[in-house]
Amino acid sequence: MKETYIKEFRPAELNNPILIEGLPGLGLVGKIAIRYLVKQLKAQKFAYLYSPHFPYFVLVNRKGSVRLLRGAFYSWKNPTGGSDLIFFTGDSQSQTIEGQYEIADRILEFARNPTVSTIVTIGGYRVETEAKPKVYVAATSPEILNKAVNAGAVVSGSGSPIVGTAGLILGLARFKKIDALCLLGETRGYLPDPMAASSVLEVLKSAFSFDVDMAALKEDIAKAEKMVQRLQTIEEKRALQAEETRREEDKKTTYIS
Amino acid sequence: MKETYIKEFRPAELNNPILIEGLPGLGLVGKIAIRYLVKQLKAQKFAYLYSPHFPYFVLVNRKGSVRLLRGAFYSWKNPTGGSDLIFFTGDSQSQTIEGQYEIADRILEFARNPTVSTIVTIGGYRVETEAKPKVYVAATSPEILNKAVNAGAVVSGSGSPIVGTAGLILGLARFKKIDALCLLGETRGYLPDPMAASSVLEVLKSAFSFDVDMAALKEDIAKAEKMVQRLQTIEEKRALQAEETRREEDKKTTYIS
Amino acid sequence: MKETYIKEFRPAELNNPILIEGLPGLGLVGKIAIRYLVKQLKAQKFAYLYSPHFPYFVLVNRKGSVRLLRGAFYSWKNPTGGSDLIFFTGDSQSQTIEGQYEIADRILEFARNPTVSTIVTIGGYRVETEAKPKVYVAATSPEILNKAVNAGAVVSGSGSPIVGTAGLILGLARFKKIDALCLLGETRGYLPDPMAASSVLEVLKSAFSFDVDMAALKEDIAKAEKMVQRLQTIEEKRALQAEETRREEDKKTTYIS
Amino acid sequence: MKETYIKEFRPAELNNPILIEGLPGLGLVGKIAIRYLVKQLKAQKFAYLYSPHFPYFVLVNRKGSVRLLRGAFYSWKNPTGGSDLIFFTGDSQSQTIEGQYEIADRILEFARNPTVSTIVTIGGYRVETEAKPKVYVAATSPEILNKAVNAGAVVSGSGSPIVGTAGLILGLARFKKIDALCLLGETRGYLPDPMAASSVLEVLKSAFSFDVDMAALKEDIAKAEKMVQRLQTIEEKRALQAEETRREEDKKTTYIS
Repeated sequence: MKETYIKEFRPAELNNPILIEGLPGLGLVGKIAIRYLVKQLKAQKFAYLYSPHFPYFVLVNRKGSVRLLRGAFYSWKNPTGGSDLIFFTGDSQSQTIEGQYEIADRILEFARNPTVSTIVTIGGYRVETEAKPKVYVAATSPEILNKAVNAGAVVSGSGSPIVGTAGLILGLARFKKIDALCLLGETRGYLPDPMAASSVLEVLKSAFSFDVDMAALKEDIAKAEKMVQRLQTIEEKRALQAEETRREEDKKTTYIS
Repeated sequence: MKETYIKEFRPAELNNPILIEGLPGLGLVGKIAIRYLVKQLKAQKFAYLYSPHFPYFVLVNRKGSVRLLRGAFYSWKNPTGGSDLIFFTGDSQSQTIEGQYEIADRILEFARNPTVSTIVTIGGYRVETEAKPKVYVAATSPEILNKAVNAGAVVSGSGSPIVGTAGLILGLARFKKIDALCLLGETRGYLPDPMAASSVLEVLKSAFSFDVDMAALKEDIAKAEKMVQRLQTIEEKRALQAEETRREEDKKTTYIS
Repeated sequence: MKETYIKEFRPAELNNPILIEGLPGLGLVGKIAIRYLVKQLKAQKFAYLYSPHFPYFVLVNRKGSVRLLRGAFYSWKNPTGGSDLIFFTGDSQSQTIEGQYEIADRILEFARNPTVSTIVTIGGYRVETEAKPKVYVAATSPEILNKAVNAGAVVSGSGSPIVGTAGLILGLARFKKIDALCLLGETRGYLPDPMAASSVLEVLKSAFSFDVDMAALKEDIAKAEKMVQRLQTIEEKRALQAEETRREEDKKTTYIS
Repeated sequence: MKETYIKEFRPAELNNPILIEGLPGLGLVGKIAIRYLVKQLKAQKFAYLYSPHFPYFVLVNRKGSVRLLRGAFYSWKNPTGGSDLIFFTGDSQSQTIEGQYEIADRILEFARNPTVSTIVTIGGYRVETEAKPKVYVAATSPEILNKAVNAGAVVSGSGSPIVGTAGLILGLARFKKIDALCLLGETRGYLPDPMAASSVLEVLKSAFSFDVDMAALKEDIAKAEKMVQRLQTIEEKRALQAEETRREEDKKTTYIS
């Protein structure tokens, strides 16, 4: 394997499909969103992306079997007759600069085959707020941008960078004559953030007219919030103890001198 | 995109053109100079340079549209019938060593097509002075060197390095049989330095006999100087406060012991 | 040399061979195991692997001769008529990400030529225990996995990574239609660990029905244990001295103030 | 320029030439040795080696002209009718691993053209002694090794690495069927070390039967020794002052508490 390549192991006959991408990144927003969609919609895996620019280890699956790091494509037939959906997520982003460009390029090439009309990429946008996460949007054309704006997204500020595959797919899309937009959910980014993913999914559902039951994601959000509270409690205790220790040591210093 | 490539989207019929390059570097001297020329001379964008060796993010433009990092070529028809000018600037230098050589090479290849006779590259030269910035020059031939010297530049000292695209273009130019010179404006390099860019432009105008109104750049210089003063005031206050804090803590230490 | 390549200098006519790989890694478990097998079974070197992704130095051999870093293949004819064995070990792993994939790929390509049916890779698994090292196994198929489990190995936990050549060979093996399994011996990983190698060899012997005299390895284990004890004694002395010094300095501090 | 390449600008008709290489490295031993030979023997430059794996800057020469980093080949016609000599030195070693292999490979390819029979590489060997530097030798064959041993070199110890171009040329030489040896002069390695270069040259002259006047190198050695003494004096003063400052501060501490 000298280059990134995509192996399609099941033909996916799709109707005017939209490709939605979310790799690991800030707050895992994109990966959480895609995994949730795949699970809720029972999407079918149909292709893998492999790359020598992924980290050089393999993962052990259940039952001791082994696999390379990879990306995976899933298809979903829209029962209402609207656009079918392709989902893409994976274990990792590229570890090299050239690999970042190569992987985005291969995803776009692949998207041209089943004649994908639109690509949506998902990522996180770092903020230090605890308010309900806003969703920022950037796009290759005003038409597709407005779809997301009408669904509640805020136009991304001029000059802000979109890092990694989510950004490069948009940057390279115009060379392949594919429309693309990027949805970035606000996140503090330290921990997996299902709340940010939820905000992105609300925009996505509304903009592309498909429905997903959000109940299970609400449970994940509740769990994540409990986790954050637990970490805060631990951190506060640690700070109190550190303060205590400092005082004890100040006393000792006094005795010595 | 596996390699650096240049996309010409508007034919530029030019008369004996000179190419002037300035990418981001020390004090942003080259980029400020080129952007000023493009704006004042109302030069027309006619080609982009893309590279997988640029950083792996995209930028959001106004109105939420997205673009890859890139370099841009601009053309200017000289109304006096003298040499037309091509300007080149961009968002970034290459992030890899091989990419640095590749990008300089592509710019030179591109320059051979519209039969550019001379290339000028612009950069910064780090000094710790506050005097009016001098301009250093190095070149591929004594003839072109003297043009800049007669216009007020100082010959660059033996053994000094010229880093990045501004340097490699000169180094590779002789293999393409193109004359090239590099103008380096003295700068402390910490902040964008329109003063250094101004010194370079004075040499450039005189050496290649074209005129540009410098009034707007004087305003930028005044703004930059105010910014430096404001930063110095902030720094002095910070130092005073740190001193104050230290004294308070010394007192506390005394009380404790 | 622009790419990894393998130079076969002696034809190895082998019967249904199994390839066993162990490069330097955690606790040198893989390298120690392979070197022990090569020595005890008097296996014959028949090919070298060279790569521009190895570190850029050469080694001086005995008598002042010099050689590139490399991997080496050894063959062993099974006197009982069972599967012959090929051993592979070397000086180093690849220093680049792409090189890691390239080297694993070349080993697999090479294994297809003498129609290797099964590849075994050996590595270390970091733990902080001093108990007898367990051996973890992961594999490309349940059949070959069970061979190792029946020989005493424990199925590797879901989600654990296997880093480097030992892992990538397994990950890439399915593309070449070769069965592969990986044996990881528990090790603290700081020092060469013949004990961990010994545990792996016990599993290997039993799973693939060949015999090796383990007496010499027991001696290596005893030496390694003495070395660990010596290092611990040194470390304890150092800690005591540091404590002593600290007390002396505390006294001085008291005198001064 | 996508790859390392060599440009021969003057045909060098040479009799059974020996190539002697010395790039910058530990103590600059190789570069000092080659530059001294080139100057004393008035060798003629006849080819350059360029590489995109060299650092990405250019150097300004005297009179403001500019050049890429490069290696240079020089030829010397032996007036006694013995082997002619080719010298190779340059500004830098490769900045990437793959480049290290590529550059060594190109030098060997080039050496096959004028049918070089033997290559000598020169480097430094780090020691902390101040005694007269010994010279270590490693080689591709016992015959050529003995030439250096008979001329006073010591056989390099088993297992020691030879880093960079000096090492890789030896490692790759056997694939090109060229004999090669490496001479390493003992050096502390911090500063340019003409003394180590001198030891290497003594071995070289004797092993390959050519003569060079060593008087000028003796002067360089004297200068280097004075430099070392001056740096030691400065360091001792600095240490004394630091001690003084510490005492003053101890006093202050006492007053405060």
